[in-house]
Amino acid sequence: MQDKLNLMIPGPTPVPEKVLQAVGKHPIGHRSKEFQAIVKRTSEQLKWLHQTKNEVLTITGSGTAAMEAAIINTLSRGDKVLCGDNGKFGERWVKVAKAFGLEVEVIKAKWGLPLNSEDFEKVLRQDVNKQIKAVILTHSETSTGVINDLQTISKHVRAHGSAITIVDCVTSLGACSVPMDEWGLDVVASGSQKGYMIPPGLSFIAMSNRAWEAQARSNLPKFYLDLDLYRKTAKKNSNPFTPAVNLYFGLEAALEMMQEEGLTSIFKRHARHRAATQAGMKAIGLPLFAPEENGSPAITAVATKDIDAEILRKNVKENFDILLAGGQDHLKGKIFRVGHLGFVCDRDVLTAIAAIEATLQSLNLLDNEMGAGIAAASKMLQ
Amino acid sequence: MQDKLNLMIPGPTPVPEKVLQAVGKHPIGHRSKEFQAIVKRTSEQLKWLHQTKNEVLTITGSGTAAMEAAIINTLSRGDKVLCGDNGKFGERWVKVAKAFGLEVEVIKAKWGLPLNSEDFEKVLRQDVNKQIKAVILTHSETSTGVINDLQTISKHVRAHGSAITIVDCVTSLGACSVPMDEWGLDVVASGSQKGYMIPPGLSFIAMSNRAWEAQARSNLPKFYLDLDLYRKTAKKNSNPFTPAVNLYFGLEAALEMMQEEGLTSIFKRHARHRAATQAGMKAIGLPLFAPEENGSPAITAVATKDIDAEILRKNVKENFDILLAGGQDHLKGKIFRVGHLGFVCDRDVLTAIAAIEATLQSLNLLDNEMGAGIAAASKMLQ
Repeated sequence: MQDKLNLMIPGPTPVPEKVLQAVGKHPIGHRSKEFQAIVKRTSEQLKWLHQTKNEVLTITGSGTAAMEAAIINTLSRGDKVLCGDNGKFGERWVKVAKAFGLEVEVIKAKWGLPLNSEDFEKVLRQDVNKQIKAVILTHSETSTGVINDLQTISKHVRAHGSAITIVDCVTSLGACSVPMDEWGLDVVASGSQKGYMIPPGLSFIAMSNRAWEAQARSNLPKFYLDLDLYRKTAKKNSNPFTPAVNLYFGLEAALEMMQEEGLTSIFKRHARHRAATQAGMKAIGLPLFAPEENGSPAITAVATKDIDAEILRKNVKENFDILLAGGQDHLKGKIFRVGHLGFVCDRDVLTAIAAIEATLQSLNLLDNEMGAGIAAASKMLQ
Repeated sequence: MQDKLNLMIPGPTPVPEKVLQAVGKHPIGHRSKEFQAIVKRTSEQLKWLHQTKNEVLTITGSGTAAMEAAIINTLSRGDKVLCGDNGKFGERWVKVAKAFGLEVEVIKAKWGLPLNSEDFEKVLRQDVNKQIKAVILTHSETSTGVINDLQTISKHVRAHGSAITIVDCVTSLGACSVPMDEWGLDVVASGSQKGYMIPPGLSFIAMSNRAWEAQARSNLPKFYLDLDLYRKTAKKNSNPFTPAVNLYFGLEAALEMMQEEGLTSIFKRHARHRAATQAGMKAIGLPLFAPEENGSPAITAVATKDIDAEILRKNVKENFDILLAGGQDHLKGKIFRVGHLGFVCDRDVLTAIAAIEATLQSLNLLDNEMGAGIAAASKMLQ
C-alpha cells in the first residue's frame, strides 16, 4: 500500500510526524540569529544524549563521514591502531583506517559473536612501547545485531594509558546508555537516521580533551572534516560550512521528544523490544543469529535455517508493508534483521512478529503453532 | 513576522512548497527499489541540468564537500595547480588545495572584479613542461556578485592540453548556462541550496572522462569522498553510504519543476532579475560593487557608500521580512548583496528593491526621489 511502509530496519528508522513537519519547514539563513539559537540548543541536547561535558559537533554527512572525521582528526600517517572487527561496520573501520595509511592490527570475532575484551587487554598490555595510538571499534554491530562490551574494552584502553578509544555508536546511541565521560570514551561517532529519529544526512562526533590533544598533533590532510573548524564555529553557535538546516530543525524536535521521554525510559523501551523480539523469534522456531545476551538493543538478527530470508522479507513487505533488513554480504538470504531502533512502540514490535509468523504460515514454513511468537513476545512486553 | 521571512540571500534560497512537502515525507529504505528509482531519475535530471553526458554524482554534504572531492579525487600530493582567486570562494579553493599539500599558484583579481582570462592564458602557455595539473576557479563568485569568464578560461586550459578544469558552479548552475560538455569542463561542483531550490545538505559533482583518468592516478587519501565508490554504486542506482533520503525527495521534485520551466526560461528569468536589480540599485543611487557587465545572474552586490550596510540589512529584515546578505570579511558593513537565485519571481525582486528604497527613506538616507528604484527595475522586468 502506498506510503504505508513501516521501517523495521536499522536505518533510516521511523520518523515522528512532529519531526517530519519540522524537516519540511522553509529553511532559514544558516548565519542568522534564529539558526544560531537552534545550534546552541541542539548542542546542549546532544551533550545530554551523550552524557558528556564534551562538545558534540554536528556534521552534514552520513555516519561514515563522522567515522572518517574520527580517524583523520586524531591520527597521523603510519600510526598504529587496533581495530575490532566482528561485522560489516567493523570491516568499514579497517577500510577507513587503511585508506589513510594507518598500520592496522585487527582483533576479529566471527560475525554473530561479540569481540572478546580479553583479546584487547592482552594486546594492549603487550604494547609496552605504547605504539598503539587508538583502539577503534563498533559498539552495536548493525550487520549482525551484536552489542560489543565497550565499557570493558574502554577500561583496558585507559589502563594502556596512551591510546584513545574511538567508537562507532551509530546504532547504540539513543538505544542504550553510552555514558561517554563515565566510560572514558574519547571519540564517539553517530548518525541521524538511527536512535535520533530523524532522516539521514547529519552525523555527530563527540571528542574528549585527550582526543582534542591528539587532534592538535594529527597530520592527516583534511578540510571539510577538519574538526578544528567545527569547534571554532561551534563556539559561536555556527558551522564552518552551510549545514543541512532542515535536518537541524528535525534534530531539535527529535531531541526535545527524547528529553521528554527521558534517557532511562528510552533505554528500557529498547531493552523491552529486544527481549520481545528475541522471545518471539525463538517461539516461532527461528534461531537468534547472535547469542541472546549479546543482542543489540537496536536490532535483532535472525537465522532462517533452510528458509530463504529474502523470500520471507519480500512477502512481509508485500503483504504487511513492513520493511525488515536482510543479511549483508555472505549472510544475504541466510538471516534477516528486525530493527527496533528509535521511534518504535510496542505495537510495531508485536505486528512485526505477527507478520513474520503469518508469512511463514502462508508459505507453509511455520514449524511451531501459529501464535506462539506473538504470545511469547507479548509476555515480554507486559 | 514569524515564518514570513523571504530569503534574498545566495543560499539557502527559497524552496517551493512542492519541494518542502517532498522533503517532509517519511523516509524510505535507501537500498529499496523505490529509492533506486529516485536515484535513477535524479541522475538523468542532473545530466540535463549540467548539459552533459557525464555521470553527475550526488554527495551528502555541503558544497565544500564537493569542492574537496574535486581536488582529492583528481590530484596527487605535490601537484601544481593554478587557482583563480577573486573573492571568498576563490580563497576557499586555495585553502582546500593547500590543505591537501598541492603547490598552488594563484591568479588574483581584486574583490569585485572578474578574473582576467589572459592571465590564465599567459601562465598556461609558459608551462611548456606541463607542470600544471589543474586550473581551479569559481564561476559565480558569491561573495562579490561577479561572474568569471569560465568559457574563455576553459578554452585556454584545453589549449594547454594536459591540465584539467575544476570549477565551483555552486551559484551559477541553474542560474545561467553551464554547458559542461560544450565548454570542455572536467569537474563541476555544485550545492543543493542554490539554483536547485532545495534545502542545504546535498552537493553534486560531475566529472569528464579526463577527470576520471586523473582519478585513477590520484594518490591523495580518501574514503567518504572517494568518487570511485560513488561511481560504482551509481551504476546500480545507489549510494556508497546512507544518503540524505529526504533531500533526494526534494531534489527529484525540484528538478521536475526546473524541467517543466525549461533551461532557457530559467536562464532568461535570472538574467532579467539581475538586470532589474542592477537598474533598481543604480536608480536608488547605490553603486554596483561589480562592473555591470560582470554581474552574477545569482546575486547582485551593492556598495553603500557612507551608509552602514548592516544597519540597512537589519531594517529591511525587521520592517519587511526580507533577508539580504551582508558583505563578507573586509566588506562587512560596506556592501550588501541581493540574492536572486533559484525560486525567485518578479514580485520578489520588485519587493526587495522597494523595501531597500523605503528603508533608506525611513533612515533619511535616500538621495534620489522615492520610487526611482522601483520604476527602473519595473522597466527591466517588462
